[in-house]
Amino acid sequence: MANNGIQQANMGSTPTLVSVTENSALLELKGVTDPSESTDTVIRPFDPAAHDLDANFRLTKYSDFLKTNTWKLPRESVDKLTQGLQRYIPSSMDPNNPCTESPVGVNATVTEVRCDDLIFWLVQATETFYASVDDPYIQGKISCADLLGNLYSLGITGIDSILILMNIASSLSEKERDVVVPFIFRGFQDAAVDAGTTVKGGDLNLNPWLSIGGVATAFCSMSGVVDPGNAVQGDVLVLTKPLGTAIAITLYQWLHDPEKWNRLKSIIPEDDAKKAYNRAVDSMMRLNKTAAMLMHKYNAHGATSVGRYGLLGSAQDLAKRQKGNVSFVIHNLPVIAKLAAVSRVMQNQWRLTQGYSPEISGGLLICLPREQAAAYLKEIDKQESYQAWIIGMVDKGERTARIIDKPRIIEVPAKEKEGELW
Amino acid sequence: MANNGIQQANMGSTPTLVSVTENSALLELKGVTDPSESTDTVIRPFDPAAHDLDANFRLTKYSDFLKTNTWKLPRESVDKLTQGLQRYIPSSMDPNNPCTESPVGVNATVTEVRCDDLIFWLVQATETFYASVDDPYIQGKISCADLLGNLYSLGITGIDSILILMNIASSLSEKERDVVVPFIFRGFQDAAVDAGTTVKGGDLNLNPWLSIGGVATAFCSMSGVVDPGNAVQGDVLVLTKPLGTAIAITLYQWLHDPEKWNRLKSIIPEDDAKKAYNRAVDSMMRLNKTAAMLMHKYNAHGATSVGRYGLLGSAQDLAKRQKGNVSFVIHNLPVIAKLAAVSRVMQNQWRLTQGYSPEISGGLLICLPREQAAAYLKEIDKQESYQAWIIGMVDKGERTARIIDKPRIIEVPAKEKEGELW
Repeated sequence: MANNGIQQANMGSTPTLVSVTENSALLELKGVTDPSESTDTVIRPFDPAAHDLDANFRLTKYSDFLKTNTWKLPRESVDKLTQGLQRYIPSSMDPNNPCTESPVGVNATVTEVRCDDLIFWLVQATETFYASVDDPYIQGKISCADLLGNLYSLGITGIDSILILMNIASSLSEKERDVVVPFIFRGFQDAAVDAGTTVKGGDLNLNPWLSIGGVATAFCSMSGVVDPGNAVQGDVLVLTKPLGTAIAITLYQWLHDPEKWNRLKSIIPEDDAKKAYNRAVDSMMRLNKTAAMLMHKYNAHGATSVGRYGLLGSAQDLAKRQKGNVSFVIHNLPVIAKLAAVSRVMQNQWRLTQGYSPEISGGLLICLPREQAAAYLKEIDKQESYQAWIIGMVDKGERTARIIDKPRIIEVPAKEKEGELW
Repeated sequence: MANNGIQQANMGSTPTLVSVTENSALLELKGVTDPSESTDTVIRPFDPAAHDLDANFRLTKYSDFLKTNTWKLPRESVDKLTQGLQRYIPSSMDPNNPCTESPVGVNATVTEVRCDDLIFWLVQATETFYASVDDPYIQGKISCADLLGNLYSLGITGIDSILILMNIASSLSEKERDVVVPFIFRGFQDAAVDAGTTVKGGDLNLNPWLSIGGVATAFCSMSGVVDPGNAVQGDVLVLTKPLGTAIAITLYQWLHDPEKWNRLKSIIPEDDAKKAYNRAVDSMMRLNKTAAMLMHKYNAHGATSVGRYGLLGSAQDLAKRQKGNVSFVIHNLPVIAKLAAVSRVMQNQWRLTQGYSPEISGGLLICLPREQAAAYLKEIDKQESYQAWIIGMVDKGERTARIIDKPRIIEVPAKEKEGELW
């Protein structure tokens, strides 16, 4: 197979995506025989025509229903419908813990297992996502990273098992399916390998909608888990990824729609929209693994991953889990450059600065002892070359969270990376 | 709340469903505080009007797409699409095991975890099902039992964790959703409790289609698992549930469709169709737990659960996993009474006697040493009051399975049970 203009991707722990010439049209997907070595070369950007698909083929079309906002039940409905479900509280949990809603974590479940006289925990998370980007390989990576965020937010760094759960849109032709699905699997698998595990299996179904999700399981000692409920007054709130991913991916889709783009181009230059998209993709693919590891070193008092309910929703979830009489106050919002302005112009569409804009594979929101925060920020930057930010503090209160009226926007520019991601 | 005509259900390990008068219209769903005691009274049969729904509301309508057979990819497609997925083989497996397709089990995955110097296995299964019956509570039980069959087929009797994965049909009105979904959860949960665990959590999404599934996890020692690949020539094949569930539930749906029923009523009297349906529901709700437990006592050489690919497909899956040069030959087919005749008349619709008719929450197909089989049959009858059958044998061969041209049909009558299930 030809190798025009393709540099070998180093697919080690921090994959470097290759840069490609405009006309490179070959795909190589090599099977991996040893999970610790991935020598795949995956051509970016994904070009449907290069795989003999229609040039207008777009993966995100199979998530068009997202616009109608009908794919997720409102939180209250979920609570109402699931109230019949017994929530199991392992005996190893503090019986005085007022937080009986979920024994550990905001989006994870815990099961006690015994091994001789020792108690271990099976911590599991399951979540389903829809196509945010048109590149199936990248989408696979994003979905896996997003799923794992639920365990990383507990300070869990060793993932033992991942199962992939995929709904394949029945409106995909067989040819389209045969192209995109293996790419999605490969992206999902590569993220799993980065996380130190592999995809063991899963379930694959046809469905009107395309979705990619999974179940992640960690077998760990109790000390491997950072209880999310130990924030104390005086702690600070740290966020490890910038906000704005939903806006960035939507703008990117509008780039392809002349009518929509006309409306927007006075607000954000095309080039800035593209940069924001690149930044968002890079951020969404990134694992929260290092962030989780450092939670132990810097004595984190709890964390959650920021997700589809936005920064505010995630902060509120975490606040509800606190054992102490605390509340969270957010003052600063690190936002992918230029997107805060877009959100302001769009008014009620995103409400980013009020904390409602959904995040896809968001960062960790962590409660850290004040005196540890600077060292945490310094070390995450040193290890990963990514910045984190102190965005607020823990005050006395009734387990609520709020963003101040006029939060300070920290504009987070695109990282300079070799190659374009799209 | 009134209690007209309702006998308290004993919801212990073998739930007895209550009998109801025609006009009883009350529902009581009490929350369970202690998973070991379930004191719910659930009214059977499910009457939509009793919950202020339209009298014609039918859960199975949300699985109408089943008729078009478009909800599952063909096996070959799944294999083709997933070939990029690395299958992980734990080092504790026999390196000379020729069966590297899946380390353990036909539909389960295994992950090694270490605890001190001991090796344990996380065995997991995930599957999704569509509504086979109109009673949401029963459907919940069936889906959970079906899921667990994947672990029971490995002789695993201790289930540690279940997560529920549910797609709620977006075409359900909010009112319909608020009625049926809690019932589905309750049924699913009650099955989990019977299995010795509870539903820890899960994922709930809106979707055009209704589906109920989950992920079951068992943490076990290697000795707790019966390797599916140890059949030897001379073993016999035992089946623990009768066949015909897909036919039974379809006939039941046709009972409500005058046009379809006209075509069929010369082949099977309405009363027989109802009895077959009752038998099928009872069978589908039944856990394969005792069957699994006895696999250890009687030195089973491997097993699989019979499912959507029918007896033949399941037998072939199991045959492919054998380490030895063996093949399976099936001579006898225990079939819910009268359904073999229906299948013959319908010719290519079901092909039950050729082994193609899908089974929902089917029994275990077990390879047993010849000298152990009779004792196995005797004990499962003694413990559960259910019959099992020797249906064939293990011969020399190339890891294939077949049903002889004219298998002997064993007509399995409805069990006499208090009350009607529908």
